[in-house]
Amino acid sequence: MNWGQRAQDRLSDIARCSVDGEGVTRFPFTSQHEAALDAIRSWMSQAGLQVHMDAAGTLIGRKDGPEGAPTFLIGSHQDSVRNGGGYDGIMGVVLGCLALEKLAADGNELPFSVEILAFADEEGVRFPTALMGPRALAGTFDPAVLAMTDSDGVSLRNALAGFGGDPDRVAALARDPAKTLGYLEIHIEQGPVLEAQDTALGIVTGICGIERNTVTFTGDTGHAGTVPMDSRRDALVAASDFISAIHDAAKKVTDLRATIGALSLHPNVVNAIPRAVELTLEIRALNDTVRDDFARLARSLGDSISDGRRVGFSMERTYEQPAVQCNGDLIDALSTATGAICPTAPRLPSGATHDASAMADLCPISMLFVRCEDGVSHKPEEFAASDDMDAAIQSIAAFLVALEV
Amino acid sequence: MNWGQRAQDRLSDIARCSVDGEGVTRFPFTSQHEAALDAIRSWMSQAGLQVHMDAAGTLIGRKDGPEGAPTFLIGSHQDSVRNGGGYDGIMGVVLGCLALEKLAADGNELPFSVEILAFADEEGVRFPTALMGPRALAGTFDPAVLAMTDSDGVSLRNALAGFGGDPDRVAALARDPAKTLGYLEIHIEQGPVLEAQDTALGIVTGICGIERNTVTFTGDTGHAGTVPMDSRRDALVAASDFISAIHDAAKKVTDLRATIGALSLHPNVVNAIPRAVELTLEIRALNDTVRDDFARLARSLGDSISDGRRVGFSMERTYEQPAVQCNGDLIDALSTATGAICPTAPRLPSGATHDASAMADLCPISMLFVRCEDGVSHKPEEFAASDDMDAAIQSIAAFLVALEV
Repeated sequence: MNWGQRAQDRLSDIARCSVDGEGVTRFPFTSQHEAALDAIRSWMSQAGLQVHMDAAGTLIGRKDGPEGAPTFLIGSHQDSVRNGGGYDGIMGVVLGCLALEKLAADGNELPFSVEILAFADEEGVRFPTALMGPRALAGTFDPAVLAMTDSDGVSLRNALAGFGGDPDRVAALARDPAKTLGYLEIHIEQGPVLEAQDTALGIVTGICGIERNTVTFTGDTGHAGTVPMDSRRDALVAASDFISAIHDAAKKVTDLRATIGALSLHPNVVNAIPRAVELTLEIRALNDTVRDDFARLARSLGDSISDGRRVGFSMERTYEQPAVQCNGDLIDALSTATGAICPTAPRLPSGATHDASAMADLCPISMLFVRCEDGVSHKPEEFAASDDMDAAIQSIAAFLVALEV
Repeated sequence: MNWGQRAQDRLSDIARCSVDGEGVTRFPFTSQHEAALDAIRSWMSQAGLQVHMDAAGTLIGRKDGPEGAPTFLIGSHQDSVRNGGGYDGIMGVVLGCLALEKLAADGNELPFSVEILAFADEEGVRFPTALMGPRALAGTFDPAVLAMTDSDGVSLRNALAGFGGDPDRVAALARDPAKTLGYLEIHIEQGPVLEAQDTALGIVTGICGIERNTVTFTGDTGHAGTVPMDSRRDALVAASDFISAIHDAAKKVTDLRATIGALSLHPNVVNAIPRAVELTLEIRALNDTVRDDFARLARSLGDSISDGRRVGFSMERTYEQPAVQCNGDLIDALSTATGAICPTAPRLPSGATHDASAMADLCPISMLFVRCEDGVSHKPEEFAASDDMDAAIQSIAAFLVALEV
């Protein structure tokens, strides 16, 4: 049985559950979501699971273990971004189902209950919120988000109710941590590291914390012809010093990423000296202290650069999300499980957020990354090879078999 | 007689010849222009000049000298930018008229003819062309521009004809260089140099040449969380190196200004690595060779920076206008004339273009700068002090009296 090819076939089937257009566009609580759940139900059934949708719209396939045994959870999301690819999210559901089907085919009985979770919404594209499914299970769901509306004015409450969910029972879905063994999420890497290292799989050490800052440099504008160089207080020159310095400083810190991705210039005219520059500084790190230290360094670089260039500087944190560590025992167990199949699988942080971020409030979490072509995600070109997915299925199966209650 | 105060009063009167709104908005060949010409006609008459409007819409006040004597020209423009100030352009007309009125009051007869020229359009805001008046006199007028239209679809030809000009006779306005003694333009500095040196007047050495370049850096985008720092080809980081290096290199070159005033970033998203940056590099210098050398340096900086940051680089010149030198004898004569009134008047280049740029094709040119508050121009806050304008009037009068045929 070629498990990797079956995964590829299923992914190409379910990619058709999409709004017309380039790539895959599958938002939560839509007819495309409905069609996708039909396919996932059949995969779960083929793996011998009992299927139901919970009040938050998460499709759950469960195989009971011995009476009183705890439950191990394997999850990912069914939704995509607009004009996204056919792997991000949904691949984790496909590979989880196939790993359980393989275990059943091999006659393996696990000493615990196991569930595959197909979450409705991780991307947060339709509504200005996301992760309702895992937050419900973790007991961190905030019912206030039910009032949020999509671009057509439909509330999350109405969308969920119309889809067969039950908005008023989402909070009641909270699981008992004592009865939850752990959580595994399989996902494409969305980055270039595995491809660069020529290896199919990677074991995630944790999910980076994120902070976003708005940084402003303020000088004086003036006529580009009439103000001598020495008299200038050019905000863009100071911002440029800062951008280069941040990049070079970030290179020296392990498991940290600093990105200045957006910038606006005022007045932004060919013959006027820039008066002000506003830019975003996003910092991600696996260790929150390392991230805090880097933010402090950024502030001190901004202070000294703005002094030298005689302009004003401010830096304000606009968003923060702490890092989440993967469980050490589960990391070791994944290393052992992948060892026979993909001995070169490295350990690496996840720079992106996942359902696992929310599941960390419930139980020990773990993640397995699968190499994706050119590190591309969220685009129609997104691709993972059948052989790599096969290695993932074998590894998940081995991981589950070796897992101790 | 307080000549400076009279200048201030006239400027505040004519500032009302404006479209309603903040500051002064006076475009060529409009009812505001018409109203302004009424005022200028009266100033010219008070100075003992004979007034007519030429085919290009330039209002000309002339005082004949001895038969066969050449003509010295004093000019500036009547128009403003949108929501501009009350000094840029029009102050040169006011001070020229008052200097001639003062000479008449003092009983001074000049041994040459003299004309005050109030050009219709220097700012080029209404039509995508400018300097029709001085170009007509210099014999460099291109009739093709008559077909250009304003934002209401009115052609320059029709606007000029409707204003009492004669589009078909503009080219015939060309003056005989042999009969033209020289040209003087009085203008606010539009920069901070005179204020910083605490001096009312400055003598212009020349009008800087200008070139504009479009500079592009091209790298790879990617997810700000998943692409490690070492794998990045961040276009903005390379562009930042370039911006800082250009600024610091320009500081070391005399009479040169290099400005990166406009910049666009792609995709310009908080959590995506910048793929491409396009920016404008404007270089102005009094010496065209110095400007060429700097453009070459910029290209070589771009090449080495883009190599180091592993991104692509291109630089394309999109516009060029050569420098124009003021006449050495007229510069010396202005130094002598200002010496008694403003002994600290420095010599400095003009970074901005003026009517004098076009007049240089006809005859020796000269310019006198008057200090403006905070170096501000093209804004309602534009201001020159009465005392400074008085010093200019005294200097122009002394300059004319000393001028040899």
